[in-house]
Amino acid sequence: MSRFLTLIPYLAAQRILKTSAKPRYLIRTIQVTKSHGHICHEPVYSRLTVPNSAVSKRDGYVINASDTFNASDSDPVQLSVFDQVHTGSPIPEGFDAVVMHEDIREDVNGNITILKPARPGQNIQKAGSEIKTGEMIIPADHVISPEDIGAMIGYGITSVQVKKIVVGLIPTGDELKEPCTAPGPGEVIASNCEMLAASLVTIGIETFIYPIIPDDPKKIRDTVEEAVGECSFVIISGGSSTGCRDHTKDVLTAIGTILYHGVAMRPGKTTLAAIVQDIPVFGVPGTPAGALAVLRGLIIPWLSDIGYPVPIHHSIPVTLADSVPSELGTDDFVLMVVGKVGDEYKAMMVPREGGQISAVKSNAVLHIARNSEGIGKGKKSLVHMTRCSPPPDNIYLFYGMYDPILDVLDQYLRKLNKRIYVREASLESTLLSMQKNTVHGGIIIRPRNNGLNVLEHGYTNTHQKLCTITVADREYILAASVFPNYDSLKEFAFPKIPDHSFLYEIQEQFILNHQINPLLIERIEPECKTELEIVQQIIQEKIDFGPCSASLASEYDLFGPVIGSERIDLIVKQDDAQSEQINALQEILSSEEWRSESGHLQGYNLKRSGQICCLKEH
Amino acid sequence: MSRFLTLIPYLAAQRILKTSAKPRYLIRTIQVTKSHGHICHEPVYSRLTVPNSAVSKRDGYVINASDTFNASDSDPVQLSVFDQVHTGSPIPEGFDAVVMHEDIREDVNGNITILKPARPGQNIQKAGSEIKTGEMIIPADHVISPEDIGAMIGYGITSVQVKKIVVGLIPTGDELKEPCTAPGPGEVIASNCEMLAASLVTIGIETFIYPIIPDDPKKIRDTVEEAVGECSFVIISGGSSTGCRDHTKDVLTAIGTILYHGVAMRPGKTTLAAIVQDIPVFGVPGTPAGALAVLRGLIIPWLSDIGYPVPIHHSIPVTLADSVPSELGTDDFVLMVVGKVGDEYKAMMVPREGGQISAVKSNAVLHIARNSEGIGKGKKSLVHMTRCSPPPDNIYLFYGMYDPILDVLDQYLRKLNKRIYVREASLESTLLSMQKNTVHGGIIIRPRNNGLNVLEHGYTNTHQKLCTITVADREYILAASVFPNYDSLKEFAFPKIPDHSFLYEIQEQFILNHQINPLLIERIEPECKTELEIVQQIIQEKIDFGPCSASLASEYDLFGPVIGSERIDLIVKQDDAQSEQINALQEILSSEEWRSESGHLQGYNLKRSGQICCLKEH
Repeated sequence: MSRFLTLIPYLAAQRILKTSAKPRYLIRTIQVTKSHGHICHEPVYSRLTVPNSAVSKRDGYVINASDTFNASDSDPVQLSVFDQVHTGSPIPEGFDAVVMHEDIREDVNGNITILKPARPGQNIQKAGSEIKTGEMIIPADHVISPEDIGAMIGYGITSVQVKKIVVGLIPTGDELKEPCTAPGPGEVIASNCEMLAASLVTIGIETFIYPIIPDDPKKIRDTVEEAVGECSFVIISGGSSTGCRDHTKDVLTAIGTILYHGVAMRPGKTTLAAIVQDIPVFGVPGTPAGALAVLRGLIIPWLSDIGYPVPIHHSIPVTLADSVPSELGTDDFVLMVVGKVGDEYKAMMVPREGGQISAVKSNAVLHIARNSEGIGKGKKSLVHMTRCSPPPDNIYLFYGMYDPILDVLDQYLRKLNKRIYVREASLESTLLSMQKNTVHGGIIIRPRNNGLNVLEHGYTNTHQKLCTITVADREYILAASVFPNYDSLKEFAFPKIPDHSFLYEIQEQFILNHQINPLLIERIEPECKTELEIVQQIIQEKIDFGPCSASLASEYDLFGPVIGSERIDLIVKQDDAQSEQINALQEILSSEEWRSESGHLQGYNLKRSGQICCLKEH
Repeated sequence: MSRFLTLIPYLAAQRILKTSAKPRYLIRTIQVTKSHGHICHEPVYSRLTVPNSAVSKRDGYVINASDTFNASDSDPVQLSVFDQVHTGSPIPEGFDAVVMHEDIREDVNGNITILKPARPGQNIQKAGSEIKTGEMIIPADHVISPEDIGAMIGYGITSVQVKKIVVGLIPTGDELKEPCTAPGPGEVIASNCEMLAASLVTIGIETFIYPIIPDDPKKIRDTVEEAVGECSFVIISGGSSTGCRDHTKDVLTAIGTILYHGVAMRPGKTTLAAIVQDIPVFGVPGTPAGALAVLRGLIIPWLSDIGYPVPIHHSIPVTLADSVPSELGTDDFVLMVVGKVGDEYKAMMVPREGGQISAVKSNAVLHIARNSEGIGKGKKSLVHMTRCSPPPDNIYLFYGMYDPILDVLDQYLRKLNKRIYVREASLESTLLSMQKNTVHGGIIIRPRNNGLNVLEHGYTNTHQKLCTITVADREYILAASVFPNYDSLKEFAFPKIPDHSFLYEIQEQFILNHQINPLLIERIEPECKTELEIVQQIIQEKIDFGPCSASLASEYDLFGPVIGSERIDLIVKQDDAQSEQINALQEILSSEEWRSESGHLQGYNLKRSGQICCLKEH
């Protein structure tokens, strides 16, 4: 077995599948009410004639049109033969027109007088005008929609033959464990087939997941042979590479014909396809990203190519907020987050190596063809949407610093079918992206009433007029594990903190404000670089107290007086502040609902949430 | 009760719903594998740390990086401490790097030699680098996708709390019958709620259909009160107007607060909304078109407005192939068929009064706002797609004459996820539409080897160079119920047929060709204007034989020699004949598959199917 794959181009793999692989359709009779999205196997003909007799289209009176031919405003005709009808009522024998209440005069005795001639057939729907018994409702191969379900039921049909695709999914791998178990070192819970199944269900395909098979050629072979006897086609998850535990290729070579092994696509290159007993069998990588890329990039397009009605892939033109490098010779499928900035859709890359959680964050895929080395920041491209909720129109893209309150904000926005995606970035690259309009804005965290100078400097550099919209103030306390009696303290054991850091500044300010005798102050070594280190020293009783954020303190059951705060602001361009999107965000941040929603958060002060402040030029 | 509704504007109804109606979410715990499309009720946190130990990213050897620091091409280092690992294997205690097979030399004794220094941590994925126990996988209000299902299962989650919307659907009306029954005159099978249910299911909403309720206020009231106790919101189908059998309004007035009754939209104007015990209750018309228009135009947009994640409504810009008139003051929702002609999407109107079958034919809705009197032919507009299969890119739009073989062609195209929609139209309007590029072409049926002159004339008029692509020849026979012995016949009883009609011409040609003695020929009165009349006279033995199409003859078990044929052609512009779309259609018509597929059709000759003929200028 060779350790290296010879990769064929992605398009070649698509072509091979199109010409050499056909799924087996399974014919099933199902209830019409459950047939939504299914493919009709044979034409469906009406069992009924609708309407089944001539019926009135209106509430009114059935009359004889010939009785009214001489009627006019000046010479109205009083009718002797008529009857009341409702919309949908059958027309009784001997009548040929319906007049509406507004076209006649009724007197108190129930006599009716008509002012203008009625046309024979007026307001009458003829028997069979909608459909007649035996006429076709839908042709074969029609994909059944809600309207079709209504029509079939209305026309007397209760069950329908459909062509189903049922995919056999075979999870393989010694490392796989069933859900509900605790995986040991190197073990993982099998989830690939469940993910593939959910994806296939969305396009109307049924799936059957076989039990987990270890990396054992004999067992894999038995399961594949069972699956090709039962399914429309088969996907084997895992074992698709060339390692010593990868058996898919050898098994499929033994019992079928390999179509390809190795495709120049990323992720997903160690994929293969074969035909076993006329049934296509795909091998996909055991990594979720690889499996999904092969499903989306090869298997679903193949189904579309051979005429299976895959719903339109919603793709939209975007401007890239990031440079997306790609390897020449490889078709690259890159997970993105798409949002709408101003009138344009922008796409940010999601970390490539984040595993399943990256796919959870993304809502689109960017396909970079093999002849490209990547697409630069600011370039236009097409992306395929993989998730339509929240819609990209409702997604905010920000660069900048991270604070957990942004997760809370995202959570709050979800309720409104909106979302905020924040990518950690330096202030400089945030400002440059804002200048290029590839993001809605930035996130900046700074000591309250301070720290705007760097921003003002930045905006002078990029010539943008900026303003800030406050998200929250993050409060800092002088944390302690027991409430100290300051007066009785002989000495004050403070942490040693690097000079001029924010924590240092607020600690010194506290000492100054409380006029603590410098001689009583001890600064305990080793120096604490982070607030977590300060908290640990407090817990270990090495120090009495120290500055840290109130939110962190609360996690460790520490408390103390507020001694400073940092402000978490959005920065946006002044010109955008009144745009519909930013305005909506600012209104949300100003709302009482947001304050009460996030009010449970320890250590944040939301009094100023939503406040706008325009920055002056430096 | 007033007979007339005071209609409020459509947008006003939308606004009222947005501010006054909220559905009740029902919280349920479901299996993660079944959670696709559901809205997560609470954030989901990882139960596991992934990977749960440091693992190798590659197949290769675990080593100690410090053993390799001095290695170089010229001075390779032979390793004494190493072990083999696979991708995903845990890194054993005491190792800190993985080297791949291609970066080392192995000798026959299994000794390995390394040529360049390895970096500590190289090819090792740290424990928890993907996610740690307790970290959030998805926030609340997230709509669960296949990727999310994969992630949740992979991170140890097997069930999830979701927020469900469950809609109660109440069919009302004395005229309604259950499916599987035979409706009497004026009765119809209840299908509205099934159609609404199928539509709601597509956006992730569950439904419960109550039993059919007659037009009885007490029973309607009881059912509504039951439904508002159980459901997120309620839709009552039927009884929403002001007739004497319409009770919805009175019932809702008695037990709740009416938000509106009557909206200036078409179809659907007799709709209402109310709040009963804080639960929204909608009344929709009993007509399927009206019910669907209210669902799509008011109820689904309301759900979107209040933050329910309705998938993006796919709308596309089209050019109208027809003029679409609309009433000023009414928001009009018009069913359309959208196809792609050249590079542009074009939309044709589907007959407005066709009942449920019109909705079956359509794939889009055109919304004309109240301030418009309609949109002219050739104008651009946006339509909302209601059906995505076949995609509009694969739909052919034709004007012209109708023949049943076009249904067979449509049926054949469905297999290829394509479709042809033919609208009966005169040759003149066909040619004008072709000139405006609003259709792919026309359908013309003419005596074989004849009848092109009018087309050539037409094309001179509109200055289009045209060509024909033959679909089939429809054959005509001299039909008889018993095979006549021509020689023994004393006289020949032919039908009397209007002069110069096609049937007349082929009958006379037959007489001429067979040199029948004119004195023996009798032409039986009354004159037959249609081939059906000729067939009926043959069956009634009033005539011996007469000309009719072989397909009609076969339906009545008549037979006889072929005496003529009509050709059914597509006409397209010569410039378009090589376009991808027309070329594909021509190839289909030329294919053996099409011929064998349609070969079972009696009376059609497919020998010339797919033949192209360019018309000369007149």
